[in-house]
Amino acid sequence: MPSYKAPVRDMQFVLHEVLKIGEFDYPQFNELDQDLINGIVKEGARFSEQVLAPLNLSGDREGCTRNQDGTVSTPKGFRAAYASLIENGWTTLVHDSEYGGQNMPRVLGTAVNEMLASANTAFSTYQGLTGGAIEAISIGGTDEQKKIYLPKMVSGEWAGTMDLTEPHCGTDLGMLKTRAEPQADGSYQITGQKIFISGGDHDLTENIIHLVLARTPDAPQGVKGISLFIVPKLLESEGEGAGRINGVSCGAIEEKMGLHGSATCVMNYDAAQGYLLGEVNKGLNIMFVMMNVARVGVGMQSLAQSEVAYQNAALYAADRLQGRAITGPTNPEGPGDPIIVHPDVRRMLMESRTYNEGSRMLVYWASLQGDLEGTAERSQAERDCSSDLLGLITPVVKGYLSDIALKRTVDCQQVFGGHGYIEEWGMSQFVRDTRIAALYEGANGIQALDLVGRKLAMNSGRALMTLNAQLDVFIAENNDNEAIFDFVSAVESARGKLTDGTMWIMQNGAVDPNNVAAGSVDYMHMMGLLALAFMWGKMASVAQAQIDAGNEDEFYTNKLITGRYFIRRVLPLIDTHLALLKTGAEPVMALSDQAF
Amino acid sequence: MPSYKAPVRDMQFVLHEVLKIGEFDYPQFNELDQDLINGIVKEGARFSEQVLAPLNLSGDREGCTRNQDGTVSTPKGFRAAYASLIENGWTTLVHDSEYGGQNMPRVLGTAVNEMLASANTAFSTYQGLTGGAIEAISIGGTDEQKKIYLPKMVSGEWAGTMDLTEPHCGTDLGMLKTRAEPQADGSYQITGQKIFISGGDHDLTENIIHLVLARTPDAPQGVKGISLFIVPKLLESEGEGAGRINGVSCGAIEEKMGLHGSATCVMNYDAAQGYLLGEVNKGLNIMFVMMNVARVGVGMQSLAQSEVAYQNAALYAADRLQGRAITGPTNPEGPGDPIIVHPDVRRMLMESRTYNEGSRMLVYWASLQGDLEGTAERSQAERDCSSDLLGLITPVVKGYLSDIALKRTVDCQQVFGGHGYIEEWGMSQFVRDTRIAALYEGANGIQALDLVGRKLAMNSGRALMTLNAQLDVFIAENNDNEAIFDFVSAVESARGKLTDGTMWIMQNGAVDPNNVAAGSVDYMHMMGLLALAFMWGKMASVAQAQIDAGNEDEFYTNKLITGRYFIRRVLPLIDTHLALLKTGAEPVMALSDQAF
Repeated sequence: MPSYKAPVRDMQFVLHEVLKIGEFDYPQFNELDQDLINGIVKEGARFSEQVLAPLNLSGDREGCTRNQDGTVSTPKGFRAAYASLIENGWTTLVHDSEYGGQNMPRVLGTAVNEMLASANTAFSTYQGLTGGAIEAISIGGTDEQKKIYLPKMVSGEWAGTMDLTEPHCGTDLGMLKTRAEPQADGSYQITGQKIFISGGDHDLTENIIHLVLARTPDAPQGVKGISLFIVPKLLESEGEGAGRINGVSCGAIEEKMGLHGSATCVMNYDAAQGYLLGEVNKGLNIMFVMMNVARVGVGMQSLAQSEVAYQNAALYAADRLQGRAITGPTNPEGPGDPIIVHPDVRRMLMESRTYNEGSRMLVYWASLQGDLEGTAERSQAERDCSSDLLGLITPVVKGYLSDIALKRTVDCQQVFGGHGYIEEWGMSQFVRDTRIAALYEGANGIQALDLVGRKLAMNSGRALMTLNAQLDVFIAENNDNEAIFDFVSAVESARGKLTDGTMWIMQNGAVDPNNVAAGSVDYMHMMGLLALAFMWGKMASVAQAQIDAGNEDEFYTNKLITGRYFIRRVLPLIDTHLALLKTGAEPVMALSDQAF
Repeated sequence: MPSYKAPVRDMQFVLHEVLKIGEFDYPQFNELDQDLINGIVKEGARFSEQVLAPLNLSGDREGCTRNQDGTVSTPKGFRAAYASLIENGWTTLVHDSEYGGQNMPRVLGTAVNEMLASANTAFSTYQGLTGGAIEAISIGGTDEQKKIYLPKMVSGEWAGTMDLTEPHCGTDLGMLKTRAEPQADGSYQITGQKIFISGGDHDLTENIIHLVLARTPDAPQGVKGISLFIVPKLLESEGEGAGRINGVSCGAIEEKMGLHGSATCVMNYDAAQGYLLGEVNKGLNIMFVMMNVARVGVGMQSLAQSEVAYQNAALYAADRLQGRAITGPTNPEGPGDPIIVHPDVRRMLMESRTYNEGSRMLVYWASLQGDLEGTAERSQAERDCSSDLLGLITPVVKGYLSDIALKRTVDCQQVFGGHGYIEEWGMSQFVRDTRIAALYEGANGIQALDLVGRKLAMNSGRALMTLNAQLDVFIAENNDNEAIFDFVSAVESARGKLTDGTMWIMQNGAVDPNNVAAGSVDYMHMMGLLALAFMWGKMASVAQAQIDAGNEDEFYTNKLITGRYFIRRVLPLIDTHLALLKTGAEPVMALSDQAF
């Protein structure tokens, strides 16, 4: 059975030594001293390793069950684990203390969520999506709605869902058909079918609060006529009618490639009672706020799966004896050498390791921008800076990191040879569970279009200028540091290539917009590579300073070795993506539609 | 449910117009007129589309069952389909007429096998492995053994397996422990456990002939002490003892990521009666002949899965309405445009299409070298040429094509968005079934080592010189053809880069052999890219000649468009691989074993 050990040391490095989150003293956050943070991380590690990880393989095998009465049961052990999750307050971490939260910054929540997702991604979806729903109600809800729903959702007693997709409409929400009929009492009757609803029904909580996109009778066509509704599974939380079942039911559970422990439901709304969240026809605004948080979460989940896959591959490579090192036996007494001696095995491990450490830094850094953009004590310019960086990097964190995570879990599976294909080793599950990350919360092609079509152009290109300014600061601060000269020049060179690509897009998009769309995924990968180079630069700078100060902890030398692997063996891909971007629309569009 | 339509036109193009197999008149082959070939391809298409494809999804869901009595049942419908397979003589196609075969060339068998594997890879493994066992007995068997086993294996009444792997030894066969005790009657008693045995037991045939690697009591250590044995499931095919059960049984069926319709068995040999095949301690020689045939088969299977995944993605992209073309609606009356209008969707389809057509050409070309190397009427030099090309390209066909096929099936799944993750659409199965190709018959890292460590060096590098001579001929013949100038110069440029990489390996391998091993997969991918460029050049030359002659069939213009996509958007990866190859062992090996 696969195992998981939370990378606590690396998390501490990112949180304390690079991002220095313990130094914040913004009043919106609880007091963030280093010990408190470390205590939370260590407790999260223990919970993930001991409670969640042992349920991962069994949860995959058993999956969720829709019972004859239409209720949904989660795999064995999930209920007890969930009870323990809320008992220990894990659902409350980043939420507002007004509703029972702990007021911790989002970046710390991301660190904890990484561990939950490494240990058991399927399990982690239930509380992950509830977090999104809490966010939406916090933004769009009335005071009364907040009072009704938030305390029980923050405590984890109730769960939440996001209900967007319908059978005929996923990406193109303008096509959605679910109807919302206004009632005399100010509520709405919701009727329609939603698909792909994660946690649409389950047995972990007593109530589930669905946030449902639907159209009112007189709504304009397309995306401008979509409203958002709160549709609880059980109506009236208190008083006589408490617990009355609403007209919402799970019609089926989808059979998926992976994530079997997460119930993906077809949800039927049959004149279900719903309450408008926010304004009529403005539902997408709130949904997109949720989606952006969820997209950073998908990047986190991608990293989390690659991390646990790497750990198991590294253990196997140290354990499995097969063949001899090409430079001479390292285990002459044994029947063979451990396969970690073989350069190609080590290559696959290094690819994953450098991805994991770089991505952890990137995801935490992005989450921190989310904290900083909302910090009232900072100047508007400072907040805009964080907002720009977060907006620009969100599609990259979602799209690029999930694209690469799949390759990394596949590589880690490859380390096992034929055993990697056998379910009991668990490597197949990591690949299957990771595969969803490129598909949900907006397929990766949509992320790439969001990046090139929206984020680059917003505010006259301010976000990219903001990123460039950050890169300038990094380069200026480290330019004289000869020990990490290779990191600094890698960032500078990668930035030059991205600029080249951006210029190409600006010049050729005007000629034919398909030029931009055809190369959008290449551009997204370029920005992902630059972002990781930047993150590696920041980490290298901190690690080198420790070494220069005489710190002999091997953690720092290993950090530099792992970073240099990225610079030398991963970053060169940026050249290919630039070359492909510049081929433009012609090779992609030349074949007629009918010829496919 | 996914569908499959055999790409008959493209197969005919490769077989007749490029490889011109109908023009062979070697006596070892049946008369190969074009009509006969087309008839076989069309019948194979019908059988694959109508009999096998409908059983693919259901076979995946049901999987194989080990019954309480230890027997194994294949999924519903497989027995009837197998009966139809042998009734129509499909198992006999490429085998010797002396044993009931049809004496068709291997290249034609490959075309038929491609269709079987596209329609139902799991089903196709049963007869595919029997083909390998027939090959082994043909090479190593005595006349009596051939007479006993081959007729019923060729007819398909009996099946065959290859039994190499043991729990502690896969790649490193020198570690195997299965024992073979010589008996007074000249037979052996075989005792041990084998794992990952495809078709180890099943209900499709009355008997299964296992080819088992084992050690005799006085065998030398390591790979020089391995012998090969024929171990039938049922002993004595005739006479009084007919049908006596041998001491061989299936202990378990592995639960795999995919290929569920193919029974992957743990096989227990308990003093089973076996017969030496070939010479004592020379078992691997025969096994490697089988393995090489099987490796080309894995390349074929990779192509086959990518082909069927592409077909379904193209159908979905033409059918699914979502969003509007960036250049203006193409379906203004409908609620949205078909998603094939979106450049990124089309990019994923083009990636697959150009891979499929290029790989088909490469796999057929490699199979043809297998036919030509064994053609007694050709000169020794001609036969050596074919033998060199086949030996050199076999690890590339296996390793490179399977690496890429996984990416292509993932891309085709991506076209479906969230629906791609739902099993009923079938795209998940294509990904899961394809995943095995990089793992079995020697994991891809082993293929890369075989290429750089063995195939490059054999006969003082003759094989690579042979390939270069072929490339010279192609370039010389097409150098003045301005219409396909881009194809010719792409081949020339890619060849230059491969040569650069080869030189680097020769110079740096001597310094540190890890330099070669660390870059071996990059080198394999470089050769794969060059090989596909070469194949595209050959196809472009034929297609252009048709166009020049006034042929207005769009097949030819589409062929050139698809080839140009490869040249412009796939081949540039060769630069990255060359750059990575040249980073050498240092970044890969720098981290200490203990730090992982």
